[in-house]
Amino acid sequence: METQSPDTILDALKWRYATKVFDPAKKIPADQWAALEESLVLTPSSFGLQPWEFVIVEDAGIREQLVSHSWNQRQVADASHLLVIALRTDVDEAYVDHFVKRVEEVRGEPGFSGYRDMMVGFINQLDAEGVKQWGKLQTYIALGQFMTVAAMMGIDACPMEGFVAAKYDEILGFAEKNLTTAVLCPAGYRSEEDKYASLPKVRFEQDGMISRI
Amino acid sequence: METQSPDTILDALKWRYATKVFDPAKKIPADQWAALEESLVLTPSSFGLQPWEFVIVEDAGIREQLVSHSWNQRQVADASHLLVIALRTDVDEAYVDHFVKRVEEVRGEPGFSGYRDMMVGFINQLDAEGVKQWGKLQTYIALGQFMTVAAMMGIDACPMEGFVAAKYDEILGFAEKNLTTAVLCPAGYRSEEDKYASLPKVRFEQDGMISRI
Repeated sequence: METQSPDTILDALKWRYATKVFDPAKKIPADQWAALEESLVLTPSSFGLQPWEFVIVEDAGIREQLVSHSWNQRQVADASHLLVIALRTDVDEAYVDHFVKRVEEVRGEPGFSGYRDMMVGFINQLDAEGVKQWGKLQTYIALGQFMTVAAMMGIDACPMEGFVAAKYDEILGFAEKNLTTAVLCPAGYRSEEDKYASLPKVRFEQDGMISRI
Repeated sequence: METQSPDTILDALKWRYATKVFDPAKKIPADQWAALEESLVLTPSSFGLQPWEFVIVEDAGIREQLVSHSWNQRQVADASHLLVIALRTDVDEAYVDHFVKRVEEVRGEPGFSGYRDMMVGFINQLDAEGVKQWGKLQTYIALGQFMTVAAMMGIDACPMEGFVAAKYDEILGFAEKNLTTAVLCPAGYRSEEDKYASLPKVRFEQDGMISRI
C-alpha cells in the first residue's frame, strides 16, 4: 500500500476549513464523488454495526427548501453535493440479526452467536435514547472520515449541525425509512468570494491540548 | 496542495481494520507520531470550540493497569501508543470567553462578540448532560480523522469503546483536570499473529447504505 508523508497529510488538513460559500458552478467529478461514497461505506463503527444511511440530496428544489431549515446557510443549496448523514432508528435485536447474517455472508462461515449475544446485550442494557446517542456518536466518525478524505482529495466541505432535524426528517421522508437526520456535510469547491478561506485557522496551543501521562 | 487519487485513499481505507493484536516491539517513529498529534490538534469541531484534550498514556505500568478496565483487551498495553480522547467537562460561558480570546489572538483583531453570544446561547439552551453529549459527538470527529490519517500513513489503530470510563478517569486523574474519558484509540502496528487482519471487511451493500433523493 502507498503511504503518505506527514507533510502531505498535514498540508491537506491545514488547507481545509468549514466552507461558508461554495461556488455553485463547480461540480465534483463523478469518479471523485464515487470514491467519497465508497469511503463513507468503509467508515468504521462500534461492533461494525453501521447504524446509518448516507443520503445524497440531489433534487435542487428540495435543497433550496432545506436552506430555510438550516439557519439560512446557503451551503445546503450551493455546494456541489449535499450529504445528509442519517441515523437509523431501528437498531434493535432484529437489526443485529440482520448484521450477523451479513457477517456470515461476507465471511462465508456461520458461528457468530457469541458476537451476536454480546451486541444484543450491549443494546438491551441501553434505553431507546441511549441507543440513539450511541448511534449518533458513530455518525460523527463518518463525518470525521468524510471531511478528512475530502481534504486529501482537494474537495471542500462544511460540517453542519445548524439545522432543524424535525424539518429535515419531514422533508426527506425519513420517518417511514426509520431514519433521523444526524449531521450534514455539503461538499464541493470554495467560492473565490469566501473570505473565511484565507483567515488563519484557530486552534488552542498544542501544549494545552495534548498531554502525556 | 498535493491531492490524492481515489484509489490511493480507498486502498488505505480497505487496508485498515480494528487491530486486535499489536506487535509490542514495533514503535511508531517520532516524526510520524508528531504528525498524528498535529492532526488531532487540527480536528474540526462545532463552532471551533475543541471541547477536548488528547492524552497520550506513556507510562507502561499505568497502561498495564488499564487493561483490566478495558474488557481485558491487550491493545491498551501492547500498541505503540495509547491515545485517550478526553472530553472537557468545563465547557461553559467562561470557556467560550477563553476560546474567543484565542480567536482574537490568532486573527489579530477583536470583534467576535456576536459569535461569542451565539455560542453562549447555544450552550445555555442545553443542560449539563446535553453539553456533554454535544461535546462527546465532537470527540468522535477526532476519532474518525485520527483513524483515517493513521491509515493513510500505514499505521494501525483500534477504536475502543469497551472500557470503564470511571476507572480511566480515576487512574488518569481526570476529575481535577475537568476531563472525562470519551473514547480510546491505541495505535501502532498489527502483529503477524492477528488473524483479524486477513478477514474480509464486513459492510452492508452500498445500495442500501447510500440513497439519493
